[in-house]
Amino acid sequence: MISRAVARNARAAAPESAPHHLVVFWRPMTDSGKADRIFMEAALEQARLAAERGEVPVGAVVVIENRIVCRSGNRTITDCDPTAHAEIAALREAATEIGNHRVLDATLYVTIEPCVMCAGAMIQARIGRLVYGADDPKGGAVRSCFSLLDHTQLNHRVEVTSGVLAEEAAALLKEFFATRR
Amino acid sequence: MISRAVARNARAAAPESAPHHLVVFWRPMTDSGKADRIFMEAALEQARLAAERGEVPVGAVVVIENRIVCRSGNRTITDCDPTAHAEIAALREAATEIGNHRVLDATLYVTIEPCVMCAGAMIQARIGRLVYGADDPKGGAVRSCFSLLDHTQLNHRVEVTSGVLAEEAAALLKEFFATRR
Repeated sequence: MISRAVARNARAAAPESAPHHLVVFWRPMTDSGKADRIFMEAALEQARLAAERGEVPVGAVVVIENRIVCRSGNRTITDCDPTAHAEIAALREAATEIGNHRVLDATLYVTIEPCVMCAGAMIQARIGRLVYGADDPKGGAVRSCFSLLDHTQLNHRVEVTSGVLAEEAAALLKEFFATRR
Repeated sequence: MISRAVARNARAAAPESAPHHLVVFWRPMTDSGKADRIFMEAALEQARLAAERGEVPVGAVVVIENRIVCRSGNRTITDCDPTAHAEIAALREAATEIGNHRVLDATLYVTIEPCVMCAGAMIQARIGRLVYGADDPKGGAVRSCFSLLDHTQLNHRVEVTSGVLAEEAAALLKEFFATRR
């Protein structure tokens, strides 16, 4: 799902000082906004480590009660696992960490808009909130291609904030694909 | 995603002698149809084993060149992993088995219509074909709630055959939920 289109979309991303919400499309920076930037920095660090392994640079962290319980980057090639996107790897580790296959009251931070698989995993895990950076116009399942996290058919909804450090997240992808041309 | 609604839907499932295709909605039993029933029997066996572990009874097998390369049932509780649906567990094992995170030219057999997460995983794994049993009217992502596997926005399509041994698959779920009332 993650593609060059994300990198091309970098300039269209929301400015980092104005993260926007799916319902309230703009809101001023608050204490919650500052925390979101701090946790997204940790996710970006995971994206950089993924790039060093030769993986598409996407990173994620899971936060419960203001504490990072796990961190992961894309691991599909490293683990020879088609499902090992950063979000799935982080959710699996978080479930192990807390000893429950429902990762309730958790916020997942990820650098790029999740794909269909990862959005579905968030519903299965019953997380409370998702914060992501740059949109993925080619496969994003939150609002770019699909709106899966607030779909009336599904039995769980996830609160979403997007656009947090979006330019940094998209720049990492752009740089990654530029070196592979 | 898997719910009592699947069990309630059992009587509405296609008769086992008339599996139907998403495009060609009915076709007579062929050699391919016979093979589908044999492989679906193996998936049903995995669903029964899942029930014995106290898991929602859904089972899957991955077939490449007419050979089962792996088998799995739901393992979310057993593994304390929100992503460990039968399909995801089978795809991960298949990738390890063949040494490639793209499980090309594979057919995945699963007893119940896949959820959003599992349909997304099939796209990530680039499988060629999906064969499933009973529809899931509450969360099915192939045709009941969403049509993700032939969506124009996504970069991979999966051929789908549904309704193979649907009554048996739905009966397993019905029995499972009946004992938990």
